[in-house]
Amino acid sequence: MNDTIEHPQIPAFVLVRPQMGENIGAAARAMWNFGLDRMRIVAPRDGWPNPSAVAMASGAGRLLDDAVVYDDLASAVGDAAFVFATTARDRDLTKPVYSPEAAMAKAAQMISEGRRVAVLFGPERAGLENDDISRANAIVSVPVNPAFASLNLAQCVLLMGYEWMRAQGDVVSEQVEMAGTNWADHSEIEHLARHFEERLDTAGFFYPDHKAASMKVNLRNMWSRLPLTRADVQTLHGTLRQMVRWKERG
Amino acid sequence: MNDTIEHPQIPAFVLVRPQMGENIGAAARAMWNFGLDRMRIVAPRDGWPNPSAVAMASGAGRLLDDAVVYDDLASAVGDAAFVFATTARDRDLTKPVYSPEAAMAKAAQMISEGRRVAVLFGPERAGLENDDISRANAIVSVPVNPAFASLNLAQCVLLMGYEWMRAQGDVVSEQVEMAGTNWADHSEIEHLARHFEERLDTAGFFYPDHKAASMKVNLRNMWSRLPLTRADVQTLHGTLRQMVRWKERG
Repeated sequence: MNDTIEHPQIPAFVLVRPQMGENIGAAARAMWNFGLDRMRIVAPRDGWPNPSAVAMASGAGRLLDDAVVYDDLASAVGDAAFVFATTARDRDLTKPVYSPEAAMAKAAQMISEGRRVAVLFGPERAGLENDDISRANAIVSVPVNPAFASLNLAQCVLLMGYEWMRAQGDVVSEQVEMAGTNWADHSEIEHLARHFEERLDTAGFFYPDHKAASMKVNLRNMWSRLPLTRADVQTLHGTLRQMVRWKERG
Repeated sequence: MNDTIEHPQIPAFVLVRPQMGENIGAAARAMWNFGLDRMRIVAPRDGWPNPSAVAMASGAGRLLDDAVVYDDLASAVGDAAFVFATTARDRDLTKPVYSPEAAMAKAAQMISEGRRVAVLFGPERAGLENDDISRANAIVSVPVNPAFASLNLAQCVLLMGYEWMRAQGDVVSEQVEMAGTNWADHSEIEHLARHFEERLDTAGFFYPDHKAASMKVNLRNMWSRLPLTRADVQTLHGTLRQMVRWKERG
């Protein structure tokens, strides 16, 4: 089956010589988390279909049913106008290097212009070979701790899928901060919340009983959401103490 | 051991009631890929230390050795100035919602100002409970396919770690919208402030006399600065009315 006709609006994710079926299934799940369902598989080590892949893919099994299997990379990307090769290691190939974010932004742009995009993921152990990478238009380098680059196949797929979804357009604007403010820390808020809860409990506020738990959650949620300063917290403690004194004066 | 002294420059990732040791180990690996090594664990189901966690963490085992275990969430985040709660589902708690990118940008900003930040991750099955989330200052919502949100614990940790690493490049603060929130308007805040002022006056809070005026201004300033919803305002009126009823019961 030809996936390019049915899903022209998203990139194809191409697993190159994947080894464990479980990892193929996990990759399918990772893709589908971000609405990606065009999987291509080049020369899977254990053949195809693969029952271990199906077992792992639960909920995303349709991606495996629809996956297109190729004998070699060249035919798997034959229809692509632009091919990205993902890698965690540095390569000495002269080739443009994109961050995942920049790569998926470019993919979204090209796809909106009607061009087909493929993203390559290498085998679990060694990643893509230089011969594979040489067929790509650009490298995508995932920024990881140089002392510990241990992304597995599904995790690499996950990050690219995540960036694909982000490239679909999230709009965030400016935040306002209050510089130099002496904010209450979490334990101070916790203490305040507990103080209110105890006093209000004594005062009979949490009524009827079956609503008490959710009333307490709502109240606690309010305290932790409000941007309270240390001074605010002291004031609020003070108001509560004063109400108690007032009560005790009778 | 107190991790806050040794690593003040990165956020703490807090696993709340994690179940499988394997998932704790996988979370450690995910963190260390992005240079994060401050793990805290609240009430791990299978106790601590956990051999399955160690087996899975290979290469990132040091994070488990250094992990700090707490009995409850409140003590795990007691030193935090700001707490993010990660969630894939929508919650009906009124709380700012950040994208992972905006959250880690804000975390980087706050940490650069010397404030401590914690990020909460819920148990594998059900995620964080509303009671946990009510202790957080903000929610981080991971944008996933609404038809298939199947991120596991380590994958959620991975995405947050990835955004943390990305935030190291440039620190940008971004805004957070609380869409659809029914904010109290100015007259409702005014009414609330007046209600507090009257009741506290009766209770003898504004004392000594020569400080009364500035105490009133400070209190009013607090009410007008806080981002209160209509529901918050009703709750606060209610707490005050209940204290009065309590007093009047004698």
